Amino acid sequence: MSTLELTVEGMHCGGCSGRLKRALESTEGVVHADVVLETKRVTVEFDQARIQADALRERVRASGFSVAAA
Amino acid sequence: MSTLELTVEGMHCGGCSGRLKRALESTEGVVHADVVLETKRVTVEFDQARIQADALRERVRASGFSVAAA
Repeated sequence: MSTLELTVEGMHCGGCSGRLKRALESTEGVVHADVVLETKRVTVEFDQARIQADALRERVRASGFSVAAA
Repeated sequence: MSTLELTVEGMHCGGCSGRLKRALESTEGVVHADVVLETKRVTVEFDQARIQADALRERVRASGFSVAAA
């Protein structure tokens, strides 16, 4: 299992952060996602045999947020 | 040009509503989308030759919101 940590811009309320968490956790290969609104930190636990870090960043962007740093 | 009016649940702030508006307006066949956070009303102007109302409802759901009424 691998872990990716991201700083995500564009979350303004619990609706935003909950939506991003659900989008990540419904993604094939993702085991668990922690999304913290206040710190903008997103931690994704994933199976590297099924999804890559770049695809996870793209999933965040496709959900309407931006990735500030890896 | 056709117009679809929806009541959408799950928007809690301007980040939520802005994200839904961008998701709709980046959809093929959508000309314009008005999203009003306070009333939950979403009005979509679209080209019926290129997209159908059901696909618009599905786009709202895929963006992490729910459609309360047509």
